[in-house]
Amino acid sequence: MKLPEKVIIKEVGPRDGLQNEPHQVSTENKAAWIDRLSESGLSYIEVTSFVHPKWIPQLADAAEVLSSIQRKPGITYAALVPNRHGLRRALDAGVDEVSVFMSASESHNKNNINKSIAETLPVLKEVVTEAKASGKTVRGYLSTVIACPYEGAISPEQVREISARLFDMGIDELSLGETIGVAVPPDVERLLEVLIPEFSNDRLAMHFHDTRGTALANISKSLEMGIHTFDSSLGGLGGCPYAKGASGNVATEDLLYMLQAMGIETGIQMERLLEAGELMESLLGRSLTSRQLELYRKAERG
Amino acid sequence: MKLPEKVIIKEVGPRDGLQNEPHQVSTENKAAWIDRLSESGLSYIEVTSFVHPKWIPQLADAAEVLSSIQRKPGITYAALVPNRHGLRRALDAGVDEVSVFMSASESHNKNNINKSIAETLPVLKEVVTEAKASGKTVRGYLSTVIACPYEGAISPEQVREISARLFDMGIDELSLGETIGVAVPPDVERLLEVLIPEFSNDRLAMHFHDTRGTALANISKSLEMGIHTFDSSLGGLGGCPYAKGASGNVATEDLLYMLQAMGIETGIQMERLLEAGELMESLLGRSLTSRQLELYRKAERG
Repeated sequence: MKLPEKVIIKEVGPRDGLQNEPHQVSTENKAAWIDRLSESGLSYIEVTSFVHPKWIPQLADAAEVLSSIQRKPGITYAALVPNRHGLRRALDAGVDEVSVFMSASESHNKNNINKSIAETLPVLKEVVTEAKASGKTVRGYLSTVIACPYEGAISPEQVREISARLFDMGIDELSLGETIGVAVPPDVERLLEVLIPEFSNDRLAMHFHDTRGTALANISKSLEMGIHTFDSSLGGLGGCPYAKGASGNVATEDLLYMLQAMGIETGIQMERLLEAGELMESLLGRSLTSRQLELYRKAERG
Repeated sequence: MKLPEKVIIKEVGPRDGLQNEPHQVSTENKAAWIDRLSESGLSYIEVTSFVHPKWIPQLADAAEVLSSIQRKPGITYAALVPNRHGLRRALDAGVDEVSVFMSASESHNKNNINKSIAETLPVLKEVVTEAKASGKTVRGYLSTVIACPYEGAISPEQVREISARLFDMGIDELSLGETIGVAVPPDVERLLEVLIPEFSNDRLAMHFHDTRGTALANISKSLEMGIHTFDSSLGGLGGCPYAKGASGNVATEDLLYMLQAMGIETGIQMERLLEAGELMESLLGRSLTSRQLELYRKAERG
């Protein structure tokens, strides 16, 4: 089984996780949590989103979060931006990298962004152009790359076409989101067989939700195909608020376990991650559900 | 990705699940649950164990369970036996198939069976010989095939040697148990690359525990290597009482989801399984933790 020697884990919990949490976390506590994550060896943290607070009130304090955290050299602190207004707020707040987002399915895009795909593309093009002109790298998120909650299966060809539009705009990396957590390894293989030859494994990341327990199986298949960048969320926080039945992202610590057991380098220390997980549990007032946190709690109890 | 067209799921919950449950389930309730499982399309159910009740009091009613269930044609109702005495009780109770068991690691075998590997082999040989003479098929369970809780990694060569001894005795199928749930797909590949050429994929089954969330990833790799028989436990019940940190078997319904999404035939109906899962939850007075049961409960709540 041929596997990459190194993998980059991009922690999206502070954005993709907290945007779905009914429980409000204060700016100070968010910053404390992000600072704890910064101590774990992660090299990339998506800290917030500059989407209008009307849509995501949980992240209304985006600029304050960015100014409150202790930035550690070598870590990219990124944020999601929906349009030029959001981009300017993110640039003013001194973000390292911005992410733009859309869906591969027309109806999920409409539900999530309130625009058709054709209407979304020029908006993203403006953002990417301006961000690049400001010297920032740009990440694209494409969701529903395997299936859409409204339309069912999405073809690799459809994903390929929209991915090409995004790369043509100048994005540096594309994160392929399996938004509703229905995929199994053969689906991942069919998709990546189309995308990798065209866009290269070095510019693609996979973003799996673990709704049906298949995320690690899908990541294992992605690794075999040469993908070496994965999004995940500490404690499995997160999910898409506009996709019925979508539950959390794959848990960073469970992904880390698998990578470590495969002998793949990540630079991340499990113990530090689990401490950050326990902090988040105390801030949210509930248990998170990763296997590693369960084992950690059992070990602590003796 | 080459996958088998059909897979046999062997449900081990009534034995491997219940033997680890602190909550006592009555014989009548066990039989009601097994009858519900029989309605799901499963073709194999391991219903109990004839290990001495001193060791596993939860299954002291083995013979009564077998006489209380409604046997459905086409289903194999199997039971675990530790020795000739257990075999005779199982034969008297009219079991369809018996399973014998041992470990690939010396210290786990000692802890689990209270005998060395060398002392265990002749005992199993007697059982297998007598069972075959009685016209029964015999399944072997070999545990700790990837790692042992006391010794760490177990080599494929060690597993190969003991497997050869078991097949030489006349067992019909060998179930390879990843007892402590630490394996990742490359471990599975290394093991099966040694075992399949020697014993054939048609005579090997995989038995994964999902302690670290990697069971479906390991099953996906096993499928690619040609394995088409898997053990699982409804609701993820079970675990090994003598292996520290070992938690439940992979959940039958989560395995079924993955197989169905891969287009693999199993003959099992998800809805019937989930109903059996809800029955078990009410009998145990606690929630089971599979993804499919969680989604089912969410859907029922609307």
